[in-house]
Amino acid sequence: SRTHRIAVLAGDGIGPEVMTDALRVLDAVESKFGFSTERNVQLVGGAALDATNNETPLPAETIAACENSDAILFGSVGGPKWENLPPDIQPERGALLPLRKHFGLFANLRPGVCLPSLTHASPVKNELIPNGFDVLCVRELTGGVYFGSPKGREERDGETVAFDTMIYKRSEIDRILRVAFTAAMGRGKKLVSVDKANVLASSVLWREVANEVAKDYPEVELSHLYVDNAAMQLCRRPDSFDVLVTENLFGDILSDEMAMISGSLGMLPSASLGGKKEGSELYFGMYEPSGGSAPDIAGQGIANPIAQILSVAMLLRFSLGENDAADAIEKAVSAAIDKGFRTGDIATGAATEKKVGTSEMTDAILAGI
Amino acid sequence: SRTHRIAVLAGDGIGPEVMTDALRVLDAVESKFGFSTERNVQLVGGAALDATNNETPLPAETIAACENSDAILFGSVGGPKWENLPPDIQPERGALLPLRKHFGLFANLRPGVCLPSLTHASPVKNELIPNGFDVLCVRELTGGVYFGSPKGREERDGETVAFDTMIYKRSEIDRILRVAFTAAMGRGKKLVSVDKANVLASSVLWREVANEVAKDYPEVELSHLYVDNAAMQLCRRPDSFDVLVTENLFGDILSDEMAMISGSLGMLPSASLGGKKEGSELYFGMYEPSGGSAPDIAGQGIANPIAQILSVAMLLRFSLGENDAADAIEKAVSAAIDKGFRTGDIATGAATEKKVGTSEMTDAILAGI
Ligand SMILES: CC(C)[C@H](C(=O)O)[C@@H](O)C(=O)O
Ligand SMILES: CC(C)[C@H](C(=O)O)[C@@H](O)C(=O)O
Repeated sequence: SRTHRIAVLAGDGIGPEVMTDALRVLDAVESKFGFSTERNVQLVGGAALDATNNETPLPAETIAACENSDAILFGSVGGPKWENLPPDIQPERGALLPLRKHFGLFANLRPGVCLPSLTHASPVKNELIPNGFDVLCVRELTGGVYFGSPKGREERDGETVAFDTMIYKRSEIDRILRVAFTAAMGRGKKLVSVDKANVLASSVLWREVANEVAKDYPEVELSHLYVDNAAMQLCRRPDSFDVLVTENLFGDILSDEMAMISGSLGMLPSASLGGKKEGSELYFGMYEPSGGSAPDIAGQGIANPIAQILSVAMLLRFSLGENDAADAIEKAVSAAIDKGFRTGDIATGAATEKKVGTSEMTDAILAGI
Repeated sequence: SRTHRIAVLAGDGIGPEVMTDALRVLDAVESKFGFSTERNVQLVGGAALDATNNETPLPAETIAACENSDAILFGSVGGPKWENLPPDIQPERGALLPLRKHFGLFANLRPGVCLPSLTHASPVKNELIPNGFDVLCVRELTGGVYFGSPKGREERDGETVAFDTMIYKRSEIDRILRVAFTAAMGRGKKLVSVDKANVLASSVLWREVANEVAKDYPEVELSHLYVDNAAMQLCRRPDSFDVLVTENLFGDILSDEMAMISGSLGMLPSASLGGKKEGSELYFGMYEPSGGSAPDIAGQGIANPIAQILSVAMLLRFSLGENDAADAIEKAVSAAIDKGFRTGDIATGAATEKKVGTSEMTDAILAGI
């Protein structure tokens, strides 16, 4: 039978508990669809800092385990305990940025979904999103101002100046646009490219390349929005978007805004994809919930496991090619929601709902597989 | 009697019609409070492009008029007619950025107000903002990635790369933080500084300077938010903010998001302040509505004039020192809203409302002066 290798990095906060449940779901689809995974469990984030005497949130063994895997299943990292460490070794920055760069994970896919039955959880008025919404945000993840050089500070004319460089190569823009156009082809065929071409030279190039790549995808309707306008439209008419593509920093801001507007951060998975594997349509990738480690509710058994479980589905689809298993998980999640199962973050208190904790929600999902 | 000089730049779209009405309100407070203004009316934006055969949206006469004034009252610029011109001479970019730079207008004050009686117009659920909200966004306006150099493109290793530089001097951060702290002292004494210090060197300096300047304002409670988190919190709990301060690009994005969330873009003025005038507490400044030129409704007499009228109030307060006149305008606007007067953008259709056009709204405001 088919065997795959995955690195499992649960991390901090609610990470370990939702990871446990996501792996139960993985077990279930493995038996059902006849494949298996070798799971290399490693420390990351605060857990790794604690184990290494604050040396690093990303130990060499962890990187090695990822290198020897087909994909990384990531939980979440960070918490108050490590907040005052130097930025470079803080759990989020010190683990996420190096992982992205080391594995060339340039394409961050972040679905922003508000199910029609969960519009009450969105901060946006229900009448603005009568049918919920389903947006895919494609964020460039290894370029731009995150990694551009020079970056640093120096003394000029007797005072400190600090600088960062927002920089894009044509090829970097080209490849992320192709990921976005391909995604749009498989969805509603509408792509919005977000930039600040009225101010930034890097955005002028971004827009040029977007218009060029568009010629290879004549069926997709491409439009452009300035980032300030995009931030406005996401609040007012999130359901008018299909796929949105943008550079690293704008994607950081807009995908979080979109996630908050969806109202169910606890349900949103994400994929960070690198190149395709040799001779295959599959990507090496890292999969993780869009939300954070939620230290305030960690250990209570009440976290919503769905974001982590749907991250497993994305991993199965994009990195392992186990599409049937991915479909089965996604259907089982929808079914559990349709049956009224709700963790605290998405509950209204309505009589038709069954309010559950982490493991009961997972049981409800397992029942549908 | 006191005489002041102002440059009046109505611009495009709804600019001219709301400017006409704002000047009627200025006339009224002049007679009532015994001062006068010399008004130097000039072209800007698309109107200037049309008059100069597409040479410039900011003619030399316009700049000269501003130089000879105590303040600039600005309408709005832009529209489909000029959208395909080269970026450098487009109405928005080609007029706004040079005006900001030429006059050193480093402090952009953008109130994001949702009156308790207008929460229906916000895209955010009313139960999240039962009492509306009142946030002041202080945006740095002449630094950062907007003006940093190098900016441009070149060939490297056989392909085009394009770059912008996000750069801040300590003194630039210091002065905008002082504006924000001072504003916070006059309000709720809560200041949130927004940065991306987990990624950007310029943000690390920003945060350091913010913490230092805070020592001079011990009564103000300073906190820090990452920009991605700020974009989320503005959607979910806008009423938890008092004053927000941030750098140019983040301010562009967040102040627009905040304006949209307030639901009444047509009511929001803004001030862009330069240095204080010699031996005075008054600033040279430019005052304009936060919304755009709304070409779709221009010429129909239905635009909400309140943003332009409240821009006059800000001008009177910050640049002319006519505080009683400013207060009178702000009170008259509130009174007109309380009496039920509503332009289309803020109307619900409720029986208690009086739906009016631009000039009737202005008449209602004049009645309160
Ligand atoms: C932790 C931080 C460096 C990171 C980012 O800015 O990319 C995070 O906000 C994210 O979006 O994954
Ligand atoms: C037109 C544009 C250059 C400008 C900016 O980005 O500053 C505008 O969006 C604004 O906020 O005034």
